Amino acid sequence: MTRLWDKRASLDARVLQYTAGEDYALDERLVRYDVRASIAHAQMLHAQQLLSVDDLALIRTGLQQLGEEHERGQWRIELADEDVHTALERRLTARIGEAGGRVHLGRSRNDQVLTALRLYLRDAIDELDTGTQGVVAALERLSARQGDIALPGYTHMQQAMPSSVAWWAEGFAAELRDDARGIHSVHRRIENNPLGSAAGYGAPGLPLDRAATTRALGFERTQEPVTSVQLSRGKAESQLLFELAILMQDLGRLAADLLLFYTQEFGFIDLPDAFTTGSSIMPQKRNPDVFELVRARTATALACLNEALFICAKLPSGYQRDLQLLKFPLFRGIDIAGQTLQIVAAALDALTFRPERIHLDPAVHAAQEAYAIVVNEGVPFREAYRRVAARYTHKE
Amino acid sequence: MTRLWDKRASLDARVLQYTAGEDYALDERLVRYDVRASIAHAQMLHAQQLLSVDDLALIRTGLQQLGEEHERGQWRIELADEDVHTALERRLTARIGEAGGRVHLGRSRNDQVLTALRLYLRDAIDELDTGTQGVVAALERLSARQGDIALPGYTHMQQAMPSSVAWWAEGFAAELRDDARGIHSVHRRIENNPLGSAAGYGAPGLPLDRAATTRALGFERTQEPVTSVQLSRGKAESQLLFELAILMQDLGRLAADLLLFYTQEFGFIDLPDAFTTGSSIMPQKRNPDVFELVRARTATALACLNEALFICAKLPSGYQRDLQLLKFPLFRGIDIAGQTLQIVAAALDALTFRPERIHLDPAVHAAQEAYAIVVNEGVPFREAYRRVAARYTHKE
Amino acid sequence: MTRLWDKRASLDARVLQYTAGEDYALDERLVRYDVRASIAHAQMLHAQQLLSVDDLALIRTGLQQLGEEHERGQWRIELADEDVHTALERRLTARIGEAGGRVHLGRSRNDQVLTALRLYLRDAIDELDTGTQGVVAALERLSARQGDIALPGYTHMQQAMPSSVAWWAEGFAAELRDDARGIHSVHRRIENNPLGSAAGYGAPGLPLDRAATTRALGFERTQEPVTSVQLSRGKAESQLLFELAILMQDLGRLAADLLLFYTQEFGFIDLPDAFTTGSSIMPQKRNPDVFELVRARTATALACLNEALFICAKLPSGYQRDLQLLKFPLFRGIDIAGQTLQIVAAALDALTFRPERIHLDPAVHAAQEAYAIVVNEGVPFREAYRRVAARYTHKE
Amino acid sequence: MTRLWDKRASLDARVLQYTAGEDYALDERLVRYDVRASIAHAQMLHAQQLLSVDDLALIRTGLQQLGEEHERGQWRIELADEDVHTALERRLTARIGEAGGRVHLGRSRNDQVLTALRLYLRDAIDELDTGTQGVVAALERLSARQGDIALPGYTHMQQAMPSSVAWWAEGFAAELRDDARGIHSVHRRIENNPLGSAAGYGAPGLPLDRAATTRALGFERTQEPVTSVQLSRGKAESQLLFELAILMQDLGRLAADLLLFYTQEFGFIDLPDAFTTGSSIMPQKRNPDVFELVRARTATALACLNEALFICAKLPSGYQRDLQLLKFPLFRGIDIAGQTLQIVAAALDALTFRPERIHLDPAVHAAQEAYAIVVNEGVPFREAYRRVAARYTHKE
Repeated sequence: MTRLWDKRASLDARVLQYTAGEDYALDERLVRYDVRASIAHAQMLHAQQLLSVDDLALIRTGLQQLGEEHERGQWRIELADEDVHTALERRLTARIGEAGGRVHLGRSRNDQVLTALRLYLRDAIDELDTGTQGVVAALERLSARQGDIALPGYTHMQQAMPSSVAWWAEGFAAELRDDARGIHSVHRRIENNPLGSAAGYGAPGLPLDRAATTRALGFERTQEPVTSVQLSRGKAESQLLFELAILMQDLGRLAADLLLFYTQEFGFIDLPDAFTTGSSIMPQKRNPDVFELVRARTATALACLNEALFICAKLPSGYQRDLQLLKFPLFRGIDIAGQTLQIVAAALDALTFRPERIHLDPAVHAAQEAYAIVVNEGVPFREAYRRVAARYTHKE
Repeated sequence: MTRLWDKRASLDARVLQYTAGEDYALDERLVRYDVRASIAHAQMLHAQQLLSVDDLALIRTGLQQLGEEHERGQWRIELADEDVHTALERRLTARIGEAGGRVHLGRSRNDQVLTALRLYLRDAIDELDTGTQGVVAALERLSARQGDIALPGYTHMQQAMPSSVAWWAEGFAAELRDDARGIHSVHRRIENNPLGSAAGYGAPGLPLDRAATTRALGFERTQEPVTSVQLSRGKAESQLLFELAILMQDLGRLAADLLLFYTQEFGFIDLPDAFTTGSSIMPQKRNPDVFELVRARTATALACLNEALFICAKLPSGYQRDLQLLKFPLFRGIDIAGQTLQIVAAALDALTFRPERIHLDPAVHAAQEAYAIVVNEGVPFREAYRRVAARYTHKE
Repeated sequence: MTRLWDKRASLDARVLQYTAGEDYALDERLVRYDVRASIAHAQMLHAQQLLSVDDLALIRTGLQQLGEEHERGQWRIELADEDVHTALERRLTARIGEAGGRVHLGRSRNDQVLTALRLYLRDAIDELDTGTQGVVAALERLSARQGDIALPGYTHMQQAMPSSVAWWAEGFAAELRDDARGIHSVHRRIENNPLGSAAGYGAPGLPLDRAATTRALGFERTQEPVTSVQLSRGKAESQLLFELAILMQDLGRLAADLLLFYTQEFGFIDLPDAFTTGSSIMPQKRNPDVFELVRARTATALACLNEALFICAKLPSGYQRDLQLLKFPLFRGIDIAGQTLQIVAAALDALTFRPERIHLDPAVHAAQEAYAIVVNEGVPFREAYRRVAARYTHKE
Repeated sequence: MTRLWDKRASLDARVLQYTAGEDYALDERLVRYDVRASIAHAQMLHAQQLLSVDDLALIRTGLQQLGEEHERGQWRIELADEDVHTALERRLTARIGEAGGRVHLGRSRNDQVLTALRLYLRDAIDELDTGTQGVVAALERLSARQGDIALPGYTHMQQAMPSSVAWWAEGFAAELRDDARGIHSVHRRIENNPLGSAAGYGAPGLPLDRAATTRALGFERTQEPVTSVQLSRGKAESQLLFELAILMQDLGRLAADLLLFYTQEFGFIDLPDAFTTGSSIMPQKRNPDVFELVRARTATALACLNEALFICAKLPSGYQRDLQLLKFPLFRGIDIAGQTLQIVAAALDALTFRPERIHLDPAVHAAQEAYAIVVNEGVPFREAYRRVAARYTHKE
């Protein structure tokens, strides 16, 4: 088996291992998108009279079959394939012969991978949105179920003002809805069609029609000039990871609250056994591991964002192989956010607030008392504040 | 002098130093915004019959004067003031008497600081946009001036395809325009009015009209429910820092290119003496320090983003004093991006490409040669590729 | 199959997936260390008359067999096992019966995993040291082979002073030797025996002899008090990741130099085909991907360090499930550093400097000229500097 | 006023502002160290017959006076000075005439700043050690004062085993002692003398005696080869910041515990008014801001470490101006750690545990009960565990 660009010496096996390392496995999820983009590219070549109708038919059918077979698990990208692009072109050529060698005309793996990634990100955004809405819906169910229960409103982790389960749940729901909008805002950076920028400098002498693939693949615009394309690599990826860091921050803060509420000292909530784990040494323990891991995953989200941003930093312009490593933190960040959303939604449905354990310090009404003095007596707030403060001189 | 909430023991001086540390100095830039928001709040209190028309007049005039005097450098926030809010209320009360104690009714420093920050961020976004457009304009001037000069297009830092100064400059210009759009997209998170959420749980018993301050301050919507407000603290800040990290990434990559071009071995560009610095030991040296520092500032931008995200992570919901520390990385990130934009624009105007030193390896036309074979002979690209590759078997 | 602590409801499958997620696979590399620590623990229990000699024999033989079978690939930790500890205890009990249920007396998975990790880290340090010395040796071979070749010494990426291939290689070799010392310095934090601290609060009522396992496992001291043990989790891990970040920084800087040297414009080095890769579009290209990926791996190293530090940050004391997630960045950081060391050593052996392409700007001798004026004429250095500077008024 | 290397055009003011930006102010703390290193350098020049005895006397006295005057606040480094080195040489020459121009012979600002930084780091390490021991001493006083009070030992934030205030305090004390050892371990990287490596390529033609300055300044060894010196820049800085991140992690976890203990629901501790702050809206509030800010400072520590590591990453070898930016995160990290240590020590002395509020769930003795069954009845631990677990089937 040979790689597309093999010309002379066989590649040192260690070099292949180091350079294609995790990549060939990561690329599995790009197969369907590379198939789609390759078909759009071939159609454009045909329309530009760079590919015969017969070759187009062979390519289209061949790629569709390869995509379906991959979906069914009938083949996998191998280390020696290096990446999804080589894996597909090699298999296509093995299947349809010479015509397979015609599909790469006017493109490079540099624009090809970016196209596949952006198509993939569209679907990832949709799934992350669905996952986020799932947590929102669970918060709303909680609010409907137990919203009336009074809860202290905390500032500085101190009881501060009266609140409720509804306000607690709806505060998080509102932020998660906003996080979902944040995730959607990444579309701004993925709706640029990179296809046809080739290695980053176009395809001199070839009559490509970039607008055609823009339309065929549903992009909003063709990314121009061609030299901007590789400069943009990593930006949509980082933005999605940033928005996921914000999402995970909210989920982590929700988990921090619930871990507090689940302590024996608070005792505000109950969790079913299915959502707690035991201890290998202490027979009595039921631990809220799920929420601890949600809290910890904020660290993973931040690390993925950092990795993506730092990979791109300080690089000269033009494609650099460094950019390949973006896929790992991108996919890891997406997967972990998706898993976390699912488990949080399930956990919220499972938990129960315990009103009998929730006690509001009467002092949480102090601000309201000061307000009443202002309204009733017309004194300045600062004066009312001082009067009420005198009542609460000694804590508890 | 006393702080608003001083009730009993005087605050330990070390505690004041540790808690108000950098804050009082950082808050200088928030004075004008806190004045504006406080006047809007007072007007609303008056409209809701919680403040007399005379008191409103006193408050409005007093705050406006304090704002103007601050603008003229006539007073500064002091350590003992702790923050901008206390500094203003204290000075206002000293000036207009009892009425000054009426302005804090129905708000908390928690919603107050967020309001001031969001108003500030609006202006910061405008300035950063102007700065970014300044670099775009400098790139366009460069393209107009020397755009025709041929330049190798690089991939993997290797000469790959033909390019030009115009394509180099316009690739960056396109990305910077996109970065400016990214900076603007932060508006989505700052156009929510937090005022009236008070400490994060509203103002029970007070007939506040939050929609009135939303209108008066030009926000797009009132942020609700009140419990979402403190959960959102840090998000707009982090998003702006993220977009600045992306912007600084582009500027750092531009600097990386120019540092390469300025080596003796490339020799592609010249810099006037005013834009280089000398060495204390080597008499002949002219160093491109500006571009080195631009490259290094990508690290600062990332650190500011990290600091902001780390500060918020894992916190229980509700206001936590930790959030105060967001101002430092936010202001530092904004300032450094602003300074970098200015110097890069100036440096681009100052540099000159040296066409006599720029040599394109003839092999950069290899892809075009292969394309010609495909177009002329109809052979598959992969076959044309192999034929052309044979011509270039030995590098250089 | 049941987990150790299963008491009532079966664990929700999604919870198992989320909590044991990557862990069971990561734990593969801990099997041998957990076997060793468990045998030491059982011997101590026997010496303290908490385990009969027969049960000890059964346990020791059983664990040794399981360890050997695992080494031969005869079993793997399964998701339902959750972790290495449960996997071993379960298999041991299945094999030797009731005695298997005696081995966990006086320990918890909290001290058990830390013990296994520290034993593993000892071996990892040795391997990383070997890898680092491998690069040092390759640099020394390069210096022996081509050390005499003159090279410009750069500052600010500008030719500054005369240098040589020997100085270039030996500068990196000296730093890598120092990095290896840094990696060894992590021993300070791993030579504390955590075993017997159990869940973090000792084993009340049990006459454990912690000093015995300290001796048996070769630790330098017993970690005390027991409450310090879980506070120390993550520190050795982070320190190793920090030292690897420093190591990767050096390798990344070495790669940055070589990428510069490999440009057509510098042309200082040659790489054999086995160490370059081709382009899918440009037939003439030979790309130095290995060095690009080495440079990019500095980002991975930093991300792993960040993830480890951030997992631990802000946690209340005592074991938290969050800490489990440390294994992923730790193992990833170790693996990637190891692979990078191997490939860099191989690449250094493969590259050749091209003296015919290396030209030193005569101005690199300017400092030496100024020194000669000082020595010969006795004028102040600053005066000599000015005189020599006048000779070089116009660059090049 | 002119800078040392001014030759032709006056430096563009914006360039000076951007390049010397924060640096001249940061360098204030290096004045005393640069004076010391410059005197040692001059003595070596004299011993090597490169400086007359009279000039040495002038230089020594001049530098000592400048150092003392700076200590007394009689002068400050100005923006136009750019950095401490230029500020001193300029003032020295103004004072002693021509001899001032002789001191820079055989050195560069590149080795000079590194020397001054390493001398500074020695003192910084001592102060950080003192600060850390101050917290250890406060923990020991707490343990002496209230150590006997029973405290639940937590895992997963759940009551797990019996513990005590003594164990809680001594666990942290042990870790902080270890952190202090970690801070000291940075000595390994600062005890290399960089002086005489000049710009990174030595001083060709000058008979420098680097061993002499190594002895005079108390370094352990001369850093060689000269090309390794600039590669090592940033490593000691990053290592200290790493160790401070670990220290701040411990202080942040201590703060997390105390914030939990200070909630109304736990109510385990009391804080004097001097260590809490009030609310501008809620008259009853006493907030534990100090501990919140300690928790938040873990983010600052991580950001400083990140900034230092990011600055150095991916740079070509040889001095790069980027490295100048290391001072900011280094000094910031040191200062914030120092301040935090002071406030935590004071706060620990001020807090009181409230035994009347601390209730241990009887289930914390479950492990001990299981141990008793094992010891008394000889059944396997796993069987005893199951028996005890049955007693605790329903939480609380």
